[in-house]
Amino acid sequence: MFQTAELGIKVSKKEFKLRELALRESLLELQQRLRQEGQFPVIVDFAGVRGAGKGTSTNFLNKWMDNRWIVTHAYSEPTDEERARPTFWRFWRRLPPRGQLGIFLSGRYSRPLLDYVYENIGQDEFRHQLDRINNFEKALADDGALVLKFWMHISQEVQHKRLKALEKDPLRSWRMSSIDWKHYEMYDRFIDAAEQIIAHTNTGHAPWEIVEGEDLHYRSLRVGEELQMMLERHLTKEPIRQKYLADMREQVHQKVIEAQAGEGAGNRAMTILDGLDFSLALDKKDYREQLAACQARLVRLHQSAAARNSSTVLVFEGPDAAGKGGVIRRITEPLDARYFKVFPFAAPTDAELAHHYLWRFWNCIGRAGRMGIFDRSWYGRVLVERVERFAGDDEWRRAFAEINDFEDQLIEHGIVLLKFWLQISKEEQLRRFKEREETPYKRWKLSDEDWRNRERWDDYATAAHEMIQQTSVMKSPWVLVESENKAYARIKVLRTVCDALEHRLENRSQGGGD
Amino acid sequence: MFQTAELGIKVSKKEFKLRELALRESLLELQQRLRQEGQFPVIVDFAGVRGAGKGTSTNFLNKWMDNRWIVTHAYSEPTDEERARPTFWRFWRRLPPRGQLGIFLSGRYSRPLLDYVYENIGQDEFRHQLDRINNFEKALADDGALVLKFWMHISQEVQHKRLKALEKDPLRSWRMSSIDWKHYEMYDRFIDAAEQIIAHTNTGHAPWEIVEGEDLHYRSLRVGEELQMMLERHLTKEPIRQKYLADMREQVHQKVIEAQAGEGAGNRAMTILDGLDFSLALDKKDYREQLAACQARLVRLHQSAAARNSSTVLVFEGPDAAGKGGVIRRITEPLDARYFKVFPFAAPTDAELAHHYLWRFWNCIGRAGRMGIFDRSWYGRVLVERVERFAGDDEWRRAFAEINDFEDQLIEHGIVLLKFWLQISKEEQLRRFKEREETPYKRWKLSDEDWRNRERWDDYATAAHEMIQQTSVMKSPWVLVESENKAYARIKVLRTVCDALEHRLENRSQGGGD
Repeated sequence: MFQTAELGIKVSKKEFKLRELALRESLLELQQRLRQEGQFPVIVDFAGVRGAGKGTSTNFLNKWMDNRWIVTHAYSEPTDEERARPTFWRFWRRLPPRGQLGIFLSGRYSRPLLDYVYENIGQDEFRHQLDRINNFEKALADDGALVLKFWMHISQEVQHKRLKALEKDPLRSWRMSSIDWKHYEMYDRFIDAAEQIIAHTNTGHAPWEIVEGEDLHYRSLRVGEELQMMLERHLTKEPIRQKYLADMREQVHQKVIEAQAGEGAGNRAMTILDGLDFSLALDKKDYREQLAACQARLVRLHQSAAARNSSTVLVFEGPDAAGKGGVIRRITEPLDARYFKVFPFAAPTDAELAHHYLWRFWNCIGRAGRMGIFDRSWYGRVLVERVERFAGDDEWRRAFAEINDFEDQLIEHGIVLLKFWLQISKEEQLRRFKEREETPYKRWKLSDEDWRNRERWDDYATAAHEMIQQTSVMKSPWVLVESENKAYARIKVLRTVCDALEHRLENRSQGGGD
Repeated sequence: MFQTAELGIKVSKKEFKLRELALRESLLELQQRLRQEGQFPVIVDFAGVRGAGKGTSTNFLNKWMDNRWIVTHAYSEPTDEERARPTFWRFWRRLPPRGQLGIFLSGRYSRPLLDYVYENIGQDEFRHQLDRINNFEKALADDGALVLKFWMHISQEVQHKRLKALEKDPLRSWRMSSIDWKHYEMYDRFIDAAEQIIAHTNTGHAPWEIVEGEDLHYRSLRVGEELQMMLERHLTKEPIRQKYLADMREQVHQKVIEAQAGEGAGNRAMTILDGLDFSLALDKKDYREQLAACQARLVRLHQSAAARNSSTVLVFEGPDAAGKGGVIRRITEPLDARYFKVFPFAAPTDAELAHHYLWRFWNCIGRAGRMGIFDRSWYGRVLVERVERFAGDDEWRRAFAEINDFEDQLIEHGIVLLKFWLQISKEEQLRRFKEREETPYKRWKLSDEDWRNRERWDDYATAAHEMIQQTSVMKSPWVLVESENKAYARIKVLRTVCDALEHRLENRSQGGGD
């Protein structure tokens, strides 16, 4: 694999100056086009051997282009903040918005590489981490991103010369550390790991380019010209792809409408929500007693969890007026406000729309020991976005896998993840809507959108049924909550949260995330 | 996940008859369209709980449609033939051609499921096998296939009733075995494994549908109507996708041509082939001696390998007239013809074009203990198909990952895989072409195509360089052979083959594949 990058190719200073000029002009123009027409972000990664030019290449790209529209980030050891969250948080938070470039050094491939070379992890875990990276890159590419990865390579012999020269240079020797010679000795193991990385993660949508790093001029031009070519290609491809997706969504939608009309409609499919028992209720006295007891229990458990750095994520979904707000208030009322946060989600902002739909949720993942409460969530992708056709057929279908991967990362990090679906009958919703209309201090809660959503009741039920089918797993099940009676619903949720926390605290001597 | 398939939904016989009639008509029409316009195969899989209707659903589909265009295959234990080859051979060989349906029972998911439930494999190996399946399905879907998977589910309680009824029925009790009750006892473990399978392999391009299997009428209609909907959808989508790909390939190609013209061309990039030493040669006497010795050694090694069921795959690529045929003859001359086979590849036949490009190569993978010699190979995808633009930019780029996955499976199965690139200089090629023109018994070897390929010499060199970069890995490297001197090239290849076989036989007490 790497013998193709040990040819000793050189570019003279004169040729470099000439080609640099043309390249720079072209890159600047492409960057302008990217900002104006390019509805996608560009993600450039540098990985590879020490001394092969990751740093200088990054500097050249920043110099050649307008770096106000470039996010450059060199990863080193994770910060406190990063360690306290699932691994990929540090990658999601740095992603550039559409129209801009992100350049990353020693990013997502660095940790798996070192862990494998140092034998902290075995082959299987190595592969598992590479699969996670594949999922991450696939999600971004499916969303339109240009993902480009450079593996900077030099032979062991060249590396030897580099390190010797560095050692002798009084101005640069501070950049050397004992680890450099240690890694030099481990050259073969690095190459073996690098081969596996490239073979396993070199996909059509996120390709690796192996760059011979011996000659400064050659490697810099190679990186710049490759970026130029790929950017040109993507700026050509992406509008065609967007149009294709739009055409396809429209035509598939037409087919669905035709098919429904043909079937004589009316045949509403039975969903799991139809089986709920809406007669479940609690009287006032029982409710008050149980509420007090549950809240007291929750306070204790929440404190222990915080002390043990054990995080919790609670997700609430369900039809309008099903009582999500009331349930959330009963949970947060007694808690120490420093250790929880409520995230209410409405339509995404412009800044959020400039990113992958999961981005805004990743940004809400709190540090270890916190409780994050999501009033609506990433499930919007397969609920409102599906029903209202903000997401195409292709987008919501693949969202199930994306969501499962996302949640899997939360769980793997040790987070207790609970998902509640609050359900009321259609009649009860009408009653609550009317009550809101009639009660001055509740009127703000009701919008035209609520009435519109109500008209799509059956579509939402179908979407919810499929969502539960695809994303309710043993490690993180959907809890269906019969919410016709608010008191019953609140106690059921509080109990479930307490039980889950208790179970976690009993079964772990240590909290996750550190 | 499965609670959505335990609702007890039933469909009356009357309703069934009504809906069946409409469904049947629609499916037959769709099948006609598939044969006429649908340039893709349909792959339907049934998996799930015993007694949940995998068999009856298959029978219904065969009854409802014209089963002359359906390939139905129920997998059980691998046959001798199958066990002697890499696992996925049995799946590739049964694939339907474009325009037809393949219906598979207990297929690729069956073995990982059972192995995991019986704890023959751990979580990591389970995931690894599911990743392989994902790669397989992705390769087919990228190629246009409609891949649809049904998970037939019944609750443990319903399964209990089923098994009891079966036991009592004198006409059907022979279908019961002790394993049925054993698996019934292991119900929870099966469900856990099933959840992991679905969560990990439920992709946008190869989705799972979970079907409630309790009621015969309901489940049969559900399967049929889902197939109907997805087939309709795919017949709508696929032509739009094909047009999009064609447009994109054309425009990307235009951009590449423009870019090359802009750069002032002529700047041929250096490739790994430029570094070869064409002065390497052997004189006649040395050649004869070494040839005799190498062939004698090869015969012994080939016999031992055959006796120990250790397989070898040799791949030969390189420019026309580089001497592939001559090398291959020197290898096969002394060998026992029962234990090797030479596969020469030219342009694919119609039957081959109706399948994924890897299909014809999978079909050439011989049983354990054999040597398969490929005169040109799957690398055509990234060589001639790339250069001649038979494969689009998107297709050859993703082929690197597909090829690495394919070869990884051969290696994992224990096959010794060697890839030889025979290279001559452009001048030497001309000399050999002329010699062929002038020698009557060699004239048939030279075609117009050879001259055309020669014009694209640099394009082929670039393609070969990238191919070596992306697919030469430690476990299966490309061996570059300086072939200017035929004698030298032949001995180098023979030696390399002998060394690899010897190494394998010394390092394994047992051959692969059994």
